[in-house]
Amino acid sequence: MPKTKKKVARKPLSLQQVILGLQKFWAGQGCLIWQPYNVQVGAGTMNPATFLRVLGPEPWKVAYVEPSVRPDDGRYGENPNRLQQHYQFQVILKPDPGNPQEIYLRSLEALGIGMRENDVRFVEDNWEAPALGAWGLGWEVWLNGMEITQFTYFQQAGGIELPVPSVEITYGVERILMALQKVSHFRNIGWVDEVTYGDVLLQNEREHSAYNFEVAGVDRLRQLYEIFEAEARASLAAGLVLPAHDYVLKCSHAFNVLDARGAVGVTERANFFARMRDLARQVAENYLKGREQEGFPLKGKFHPISKPARALPRAAKLKTPTRPQTLLFEIGVEELPAADCVSARKQLGEKLAAALKEARLAFRQISVYGTPRRIAAVVQGLAPAQEDVELAVKGPPASRAFQPDGAPTQALAGFAAKNKVDPKALREENGYIVLRRTEKGKPVLEVLPGLLAGIVGSLQFAKVMRWDETGAAFSRPVRWLTALLGMEIVPVEWFAVRSGRTTCGLRPLNSPEIVIRQADDYLKTLRANGIEPDPAIRTKGILKQAKALAAKARGEVSIEPGLLEEVTDLVEAPHVLLGAFDPDSLSLPREVLISVMRKHQRYFPVQSGEKLLPNFLAVRNGKGEGDGGVREGNEHVLRARFADAAFFIREDHRKKLEEFRPRLATLAFQTKLGSMLDKCDRVERLTEQLSSILTLTPAQAAMAARAAHLCKADLATQMVVEMTSLQGVIGRYYAVDSGESAEVAQAIYEHNLPRGAEDAVPESPAGIAVAIADRLDSLAGLFAAGLAPTGTRDPFALRRAALGLIQILLARGISFDLRQGIRLAASFQPIPVSEALQSQVMEFISARLRGVLTDQGFRYDVVEAVLAAQGSNPLLARRAAEELTGWVKKSDWPPILAAYARCVRITREFPETFAVDPERLSEPSELALWEVCRKTSEAAVTLKETGTLTVENLLQAFVPHIPVISQFFEKVLVMTDNPAVRNNRLGMLQIIARLPSGVADLSKLEGF
Amino acid sequence: MPKTKKKVARKPLSLQQVILGLQKFWAGQGCLIWQPYNVQVGAGTMNPATFLRVLGPEPWKVAYVEPSVRPDDGRYGENPNRLQQHYQFQVILKPDPGNPQEIYLRSLEALGIGMRENDVRFVEDNWEAPALGAWGLGWEVWLNGMEITQFTYFQQAGGIELPVPSVEITYGVERILMALQKVSHFRNIGWVDEVTYGDVLLQNEREHSAYNFEVAGVDRLRQLYEIFEAEARASLAAGLVLPAHDYVLKCSHAFNVLDARGAVGVTERANFFARMRDLARQVAENYLKGREQEGFPLKGKFHPISKPARALPRAAKLKTPTRPQTLLFEIGVEELPAADCVSARKQLGEKLAAALKEARLAFRQISVYGTPRRIAAVVQGLAPAQEDVELAVKGPPASRAFQPDGAPTQALAGFAAKNKVDPKALREENGYIVLRRTEKGKPVLEVLPGLLAGIVGSLQFAKVMRWDETGAAFSRPVRWLTALLGMEIVPVEWFAVRSGRTTCGLRPLNSPEIVIRQADDYLKTLRANGIEPDPAIRTKGILKQAKALAAKARGEVSIEPGLLEEVTDLVEAPHVLLGAFDPDSLSLPREVLISVMRKHQRYFPVQSGEKLLPNFLAVRNGKGEGDGGVREGNEHVLRARFADAAFFIREDHRKKLEEFRPRLATLAFQTKLGSMLDKCDRVERLTEQLSSILTLTPAQAAMAARAAHLCKADLATQMVVEMTSLQGVIGRYYAVDSGESAEVAQAIYEHNLPRGAEDAVPESPAGIAVAIADRLDSLAGLFAAGLAPTGTRDPFALRRAALGLIQILLARGISFDLRQGIRLAASFQPIPVSEALQSQVMEFISARLRGVLTDQGFRYDVVEAVLAAQGSNPLLARRAAEELTGWVKKSDWPPILAAYARCVRITREFPETFAVDPERLSEPSELALWEVCRKTSEAAVTLKETGTLTVENLLQAFVPHIPVISQFFEKVLVMTDNPAVRNNRLGMLQIIARLPSGVADLSKLEGF
Repeated sequence: MPKTKKKVARKPLSLQQVILGLQKFWAGQGCLIWQPYNVQVGAGTMNPATFLRVLGPEPWKVAYVEPSVRPDDGRYGENPNRLQQHYQFQVILKPDPGNPQEIYLRSLEALGIGMRENDVRFVEDNWEAPALGAWGLGWEVWLNGMEITQFTYFQQAGGIELPVPSVEITYGVERILMALQKVSHFRNIGWVDEVTYGDVLLQNEREHSAYNFEVAGVDRLRQLYEIFEAEARASLAAGLVLPAHDYVLKCSHAFNVLDARGAVGVTERANFFARMRDLARQVAENYLKGREQEGFPLKGKFHPISKPARALPRAAKLKTPTRPQTLLFEIGVEELPAADCVSARKQLGEKLAAALKEARLAFRQISVYGTPRRIAAVVQGLAPAQEDVELAVKGPPASRAFQPDGAPTQALAGFAAKNKVDPKALREENGYIVLRRTEKGKPVLEVLPGLLAGIVGSLQFAKVMRWDETGAAFSRPVRWLTALLGMEIVPVEWFAVRSGRTTCGLRPLNSPEIVIRQADDYLKTLRANGIEPDPAIRTKGILKQAKALAAKARGEVSIEPGLLEEVTDLVEAPHVLLGAFDPDSLSLPREVLISVMRKHQRYFPVQSGEKLLPNFLAVRNGKGEGDGGVREGNEHVLRARFADAAFFIREDHRKKLEEFRPRLATLAFQTKLGSMLDKCDRVERLTEQLSSILTLTPAQAAMAARAAHLCKADLATQMVVEMTSLQGVIGRYYAVDSGESAEVAQAIYEHNLPRGAEDAVPESPAGIAVAIADRLDSLAGLFAAGLAPTGTRDPFALRRAALGLIQILLARGISFDLRQGIRLAASFQPIPVSEALQSQVMEFISARLRGVLTDQGFRYDVVEAVLAAQGSNPLLARRAAEELTGWVKKSDWPPILAAYARCVRITREFPETFAVDPERLSEPSELALWEVCRKTSEAAVTLKETGTLTVENLLQAFVPHIPVISQFFEKVLVMTDNPAVRNNRLGMLQIIARLPSGVADLSKLEGF
Repeated sequence: MPKTKKKVARKPLSLQQVILGLQKFWAGQGCLIWQPYNVQVGAGTMNPATFLRVLGPEPWKVAYVEPSVRPDDGRYGENPNRLQQHYQFQVILKPDPGNPQEIYLRSLEALGIGMRENDVRFVEDNWEAPALGAWGLGWEVWLNGMEITQFTYFQQAGGIELPVPSVEITYGVERILMALQKVSHFRNIGWVDEVTYGDVLLQNEREHSAYNFEVAGVDRLRQLYEIFEAEARASLAAGLVLPAHDYVLKCSHAFNVLDARGAVGVTERANFFARMRDLARQVAENYLKGREQEGFPLKGKFHPISKPARALPRAAKLKTPTRPQTLLFEIGVEELPAADCVSARKQLGEKLAAALKEARLAFRQISVYGTPRRIAAVVQGLAPAQEDVELAVKGPPASRAFQPDGAPTQALAGFAAKNKVDPKALREENGYIVLRRTEKGKPVLEVLPGLLAGIVGSLQFAKVMRWDETGAAFSRPVRWLTALLGMEIVPVEWFAVRSGRTTCGLRPLNSPEIVIRQADDYLKTLRANGIEPDPAIRTKGILKQAKALAAKARGEVSIEPGLLEEVTDLVEAPHVLLGAFDPDSLSLPREVLISVMRKHQRYFPVQSGEKLLPNFLAVRNGKGEGDGGVREGNEHVLRARFADAAFFIREDHRKKLEEFRPRLATLAFQTKLGSMLDKCDRVERLTEQLSSILTLTPAQAAMAARAAHLCKADLATQMVVEMTSLQGVIGRYYAVDSGESAEVAQAIYEHNLPRGAEDAVPESPAGIAVAIADRLDSLAGLFAAGLAPTGTRDPFALRRAALGLIQILLARGISFDLRQGIRLAASFQPIPVSEALQSQVMEFISARLRGVLTDQGFRYDVVEAVLAAQGSNPLLARRAAEELTGWVKKSDWPPILAAYARCVRITREFPETFAVDPERLSEPSELALWEVCRKTSEAAVTLKETGTLTVENLLQAFVPHIPVISQFFEKVLVMTDNPAVRNNRLGMLQIIARLPSGVADLSKLEGF
C-alpha cells in the first residue's frame, strides 16, 4: 500500500514552476511582482525595489527573482551548490505583517515542502552590507540542514535608520530546487521538462568563472570603477537618484570582479568601500528627500494583511485571587539566537524575582524555561496581594505639639488634618510626633500588568532590533505574551503585543495555537504538544539519543560543550538523526571535516577512538515523520560542503604554500600597519631577533625563520578564506605538501597557538619563537595605531594575544623579558611606538598576568608584590609568587615583614638617597646594622650576578639579620637632631629597604 | 439587461497578472521561462537567450520579460505611450511550430483580448538590427490600431544565416495593458491592486530621461565604450563568448546614451556600428563553434508541437475528368505585405496562363483573387487533358532511303525501328524522310501537380524569407494550399506544404477551417464566411463606407490612392469605422496630423473643404462586434500619437531653427561626403552662385542664401526625426516661429519640392534656387562617391532628384544650363568630380528628360533630335521639341528634311571642315548656294546673338532657301575630280549642315 502511495506522489516542481509558484503565492499576499534588475547585482537587496523602497515611512510589498552575481563564488560550474550567479527570489514586506515567518512557511508548503516531513529551522544569521551602509537581524532558514533562505528584519539602509523596518525574505532558488528534486548537483536541476539547469547555464558558469578569475582586465576595471563613480556623482549633483544608484551598483560589480581577480590591495579596498558607502548614503538621503517632497505618495497603499490584535480582558472583570497562585509568564518570540536564549532565561529569573520583591509580592519559587521561541517563568505560590507596608510620617516636635492644657497646638492640628487622622491618635517617638500608618498592599492583578510589561522591556541583548513602528526593541520580534495567574489572564500590554492564554505550538505542526488552561498546566501542556521547555532536559535528550545512534555506527559521539549548548537552544523538540557521508571524504584534513560539521552544520562528528567515522549526528526539530528525507537532505548538504572543501584544496594545490605570500599583499592587516604581507615580514624579522634571545640553536633559528616567512601564507588560500578558523592547520598541511620540513610545518601550525584559554600551546622552539613574535608585533603595532582594547571593543583580540604570550611563557617555562620584546617589536613598526605606548602595552600584558596568577590561586597581595617588581617576565613573576606565597604562609612571617616595613616606612618620605659614612658610625647597634647592610648587599649582588636573585634566596639572606634590625630601632633614635648622624642612619635603612628591589615589592603585602 | 452584463464583466488584468498570464501560457506551450537580463539592453532580442540561442540547429523555446531601455525614447514620463524603458515579453519558438500566429492569438485570448470584439491585425514590419548583424521579416501586430507586438521570423543573427529560422514574438506589455485596462496614459496602468505603473516607475522615467538627455558625461561614455570593447575582445581572445556578449551589450547601451545625448558624429557613428557588428559576429561565430564542438547538446529536446501534415490523395485514386472543369488554386499564407498582394496576384495570373499554355492545357478564362492571407486563381473551362501534339521526326535523306528496288535502305530501316513504325508508313517531305506522329496529351490531373507547385516557387518578391528547415522561401510563410479541379483535390506538394480542399477563415472567427466543396464554389464559400476575395470589391466597399461615414461627420473623406490600395490589401473583410479626436489637436500642423493618420495609422482623414475635421476613418478587418471598443482603441492610439507630436514640437520650440544646425554634424549624409551640415554648407555656397545665374534680385538672393543656410536644420528636430516625410514642412513652421521672414520660411519648405512626380514645384525664386542647388549637390557628390543609381538600387533617390530638377525648370520656365550647374556643384565637393563623371551626371539627367518629354507625347525622334542638341537645358529642349513637332507634322516636311539631309549625308564622311573660297565659285547654282550660306549663317548668328535661336526661327530662316539647295544638287556634281572645286562645294554644304547645331540634331528624325 505505501508503495502505491509513493508512486502517485506528485512530481516535484521544475525550476520555472517554483518561480512561477512563488510569484503567484506572493502576488496572493498583495505583493507587487517586480522584475530582476538590468544591472549586475550581488543580491536582490541592491535592486532599487529593495534598497530604496525600504527607506522612509511608505509601505511597500514586492516579490521578484534576482540573478545574483558573486564573482568570487565562481567554481567553473563544478561545485554542486556554488555558482558565480545564482537566482534569488526576493520578497519585501513593509510594514511587517505580524506573522511573516508563518506566511513564508506557507509559501514553502505551496511548493510542496511540508513542515512535518522536513526539518525547517530559523538559524541566527545577521546581515550587513557595509558598501550599502545597511544591516539587519534575522536568520538563515535551513531546510534539512541546507540554507535555503535569508530572512532579515532590515534596520538600516544607506546609513539611514528605518522608521518602518522591512521584512526581507530571500529564497535561494537553486537550493530549494535541489532539495525538492533531490538532485545532487545544480546542473541536474530540472528547469522545464527534460531541459536542465546545466543545459541552460553551465556554459555561463564556466565562462564567467574564467573571465572573473583569469581574464578581466585589472586596469580597465579600475578605470570603470572611476568612471562609474564620476557618473554617480554627476547624477547626484543633478538630483538624479536612480541613475546614481545604477552607477553605485556598477561600481560594486566592478569592485567584485577586481576582488575575484585578486587585484585589490589593502588601502585600495578600504578606499573603494568608503566611496561606495558614501555614494549609497547620498543616494538614500536624496531619495528620501524626494519622496518627502512628494508627500510619500505610496502612503495608504499596500494595505497590510495583519492579524487582529488580541483583546485584553478589562481590568474591572479580573477576579482577584484569595490564595497564593501560580503565575505563568511566557514571552513568545521569533527564533532567538541560542546565546540570547541562555541569557534571557537567566535575566528573566533574576529580574522577575527582583521585581516581585520590590513590589512586595511574596512567592515560593521561580522556575525559568525556554526554547528558541519562548522565554518563560513559572512563579509558584505568588501572594494574592502585595504585603502591607507600615509608613511612619514625622510630624512636629513633641515639645511643640501640645498646648499646656494638653490640647493639640496649631502645628499638630494642621499635621493631623493634612493626614486625615485624629490628633489624639498620634504618639510621640524620639521627641517627635509620628504618624504610623499601614498601607494595604494592592491585589496582585493590579500590580502584575505593569510589572510584567516592565520585565519584557528590561531584558537586555547584545544586539536588539525593531520590527514595527512602535519602537519596541528586542533580540527578535515578540509575537505573543502568555500571562496567567492561576486560571486568569493577566492583562499585559507591551507596545503592540497583548497577553492571552494561548501559546504557540511546534513549527512542524504549523505552530498551532495552544490554550493553557491554567498556569500550573504550562509544562504539561507544552509537553503534550511535543515541546520540551526545559533546556536541561533537551540537552540530556540530545546526549542520550546521540550516544545511542553513535553506538549504532560503532563509534562514539564527539561532543563539544559549546555546540551542545547551542543545539539545545536551536530546537524545541530535539530529535537526533544519524547521517553518513562518503568515506572518500575522509581523505580531507580531519580539521576541515570537523569544522564543516560543527561550525557550518551544527552536527556532532562520530569517531572510533581517534579515527573519524563517515557519519554525523544532526539534531532536527520535532520528531518523526520523513526522517529519511531529512537525513538525505542533511547528507546532501554535507556532501556539497565537502565537495567545496575538496575544490578549494584542489585549487590551492596548484601552488606551493610560498606562492600564496604575494596575495597577502591584498589582505588588510590594519590600515596603518599595512597588509598581511607587511605583517608577515615584520614577524619574520622579529623572529630572527627572538631566536637569539630565546637561545635557539642555529638549526632551530633557521626553521623559525622559514616558518615565520610562511606563517601567514595560508590566509590567502581558498580553504582558509572559506574557513578562517583553520588558519595554521591548513598552513601545516600545505607546508608538508609543498615540501617544507615537518618541523617548519609544525611551527607554522604552532605559531597560531593558543587560539583560546583551553587551547594547546606551541612546543617546538621554532613554533614558540614565531608565536611570540606574531603576538608582540600585533600588540605593539595595534596599540600604536590607537587600537588598544576598550571595555567593549577588542576587534583584534589583543586580550587573547597577551594571554597567549603568558600562556606560552608559563607553559614552556621560558624566562623572557616582555619589555625587551615589546621594544624590539616596536622597532619594526611602520608607525612610531613611543616609550609611553610601550609601557601601556606592558601594563596591558601585566594586567592579563595578574588575572592569570590570581586565577591560579595566588593571594592578591602576593601577586601585586611580584608584579610590581617582575611583571615583565611572567615566568619569574610566577616563580616569585610561589616563593613569596611560601614565606607569607609561615608563622614567623609577620615579624619579618614588620622589621622590613619599619626600614621602608621611615625612609619612604625622603626622595634623596643618603650616602653612609662608616667613619661617623659610633653606636654598637649602628655598627651592627652597617655590618648587616654590607653583608646583605653583597649577597644580593652575588645572587644577581649568578642569576639566582629570587624571593627565596633574598629572604634567606635577609631573615637572619632581623634581630640586628630590631635592636637598632630599639637602641637608636633614627631621627636625631644631628643631621649628619640622622642621614647616616637613614642611609643604612635605605640600603635594607632597597634589598628586594627587582624581586618583589613587599610593601604591597598585607600587614605591611 | 446589457447593463447587468457589463457589470459582471471580468475586471481587466493587472500588469503583473498579464505577465504571469503570459508566463503561464507559454510555459504551457513547452517554453522555458527565462529572466530579464542583468545588463541594460534595448530589446529582448539582445538577451543571449535570443541572440545566441537562435543560432545553429538546436531547438529552443523560451519566454521572458525584458525591460528594454531606449534612451532616445525618453519623454520624462510625459508621453502616454513612450518610455525610455518599457517592458517587452519575449518569446522564441525554434523551430517554427507551424501555427505560431494562431498560438500567439490564443495567448491574447488568454489575457481577455477576444478576436471578435477587437481588431487584431498583422501589419508588415520587417526588422533589422545592424549592430547585431541580424534581420528578419514579419509584422507589427495591431490591436485596434495600436502596435502591441512584433512578430518576426529571424533570418540572420550575428551575420550568420540561420539554418532553422526562429519565430520571435515580442509583446509590448504597456501597450497591451493600456488596451486591456482602457487607460490613456501609461502612468495609470494598474500594476497590482491600487498601485499604478506611475507609482512604480514614473520617477525612473523622469530621472533617466534627464540623465540621458542632459547629464550623461560624454567623454566618460566614450571611454566606457572603449573599455567595454577592449574587454569584449579580451574575452573573445580567451574563448569566452558569454562575457564578450555582455560587453557588446554594454557597448550598445553606452552608444545609445551617447546618441540620445546628441554626441555622436557621422564618422563616429559608422565606426561605432562597425565595431559592434564585428564583435557581434565574432560572438556568434564562436558561440556556434562551441556548440558544435559539444555536439549541439539541446538537439532532441523541446519537442515541437506541430500540426500533422495533411495526407495527399494518392495519384492512382484521382478521377480523370472528361469535360472541361474549373480549377481553383489558392496559396494560403501568413499576412502578405500589401505590395506583395498586388504583385502576387498579377504574377499568378500571368504565370499560370503561361504555364497552362506551355503545357497545352486549354482554358477559357483565368481570374485572380487575393487577400493578405491568400493568393488565388480560378481557371474556368480547363481542358480535361493536354492538347495532342503532332511531332515531325526527320529521318535520312529521301535519296538514301530506298534501295533501287524500292526496299528501305539500312538507314531507313534503322530509323523506322528506332521509332517503332513500319518503314512503309514513312513519307518524304522536302527531300527527307519524315515521321509524323501525334502525341496524346496527358490528363490534366497528371500535369497539374507539378505545374502548380512550380507556380508557387516561381512567384517573386522584393524580399523573401524562410520559416523552416526545408529551404522553402516566400514573401511570408505558406501555410496551406487549396487545389481543386471541379470537386477533386489536385495533389500539390510544395516543400512541406500539401494541398487539400480546405481553406482558412477570418481571423476574427479564429481562422476556422473552411471546406470548399468544388472549385466553382470558391467565391461563394469565401463570401459566405465573410471574406471578400476580390480586391476591387473590397476597394469599392471601403470607399462607399468611408464616404457615408464622412458625410455623417459632415465632411468628406480625403482619399490618397496609394493608401486606399494598401488598406484594401490589409483586410479580408473591410469594415470602416468613424473615429474622433480632440479638436484641440487641430492646432498641430495640418501636415503632421495627416501624416500621422495616413502613414502611421492607415486612417483616412476627414475634411470639410480645406478644413481638417477632428475625425478619421479606420478600416478594420471583419465587421461588427465590439465596434465601440475598436473605435476607442484607435482613438486612443491617435491621441497618443498626437501627444507625441505635440511633445516633439514643444521640445523643439526650446530652440530657434538655426540652433538645430550644429546637430546636423551628427547626421550622416554620406560617408565620403560628410555630414548633413557639410551638405547644407555646400548647398548654401552653390545657392549663392546659382542666384546670379538665375538672375535673382539682391533681396531674393539674400533670402535664398538664408533659406539655404537653414534648409536642412529641421532634420535635427525631434519632429522630423520622428516623421522624416515632414522635412521642409516642419522647417517652414519652425522658421516662422523662429522669426524668419515668410519668404525664407517658404523657400525652406520649397527647397524640398517636388517630393515626387505629382508633387508641387517651388514657386519662389529663392525656393527654386535652393531646390536646384540641393539636387545638383546630391547628384554631383553621390556620382563621385560611386553611388550612381543602378538598375535595382537608388538608395539616395537620385532619379527623383534629377526628375525634380527637370520638373522645376520646366514648370517655372527657367532656361538653365545644367551642365554649368553640375560643374559648379562639382567644384564644392570634398572629393574630385572628374569631367567624365560630370558628363555621366548630365547624361543621367538627360535620360530622365527623355522620359519626361516622351511621357508628354513628343515623338521619340523629335525628343532625340532636341536632346542631342539641347539636352542640358530642359526648358529649351522642350520648347525645341514643341517647335520641331510643329514642323514634322507639316505636309511639306519631307522635302525640307530631304534637302537638309542631302547636305548632311554628303558631308558626313569628312571629318575636316572645308573652307569656302568664294573666288573659285563659278557655277550660278554654286553662287546661289553661297548666297544662301551667307544669309542663313548671318541669320543664325543674329538669332544666337538675340537669344532667339530656336528651331522655329532657324527653320523659318532655312526653308525659303530649299529650292536653291535642290537646284544646286541638280546642276552640280559635288564630288567632282577637281579637289579644290569639290572642297569648295563640300564647304558650303557643311555650312548648311551645321545650321541647326545647338538647336536640334535633325539627323535623328525619322525620314532623314
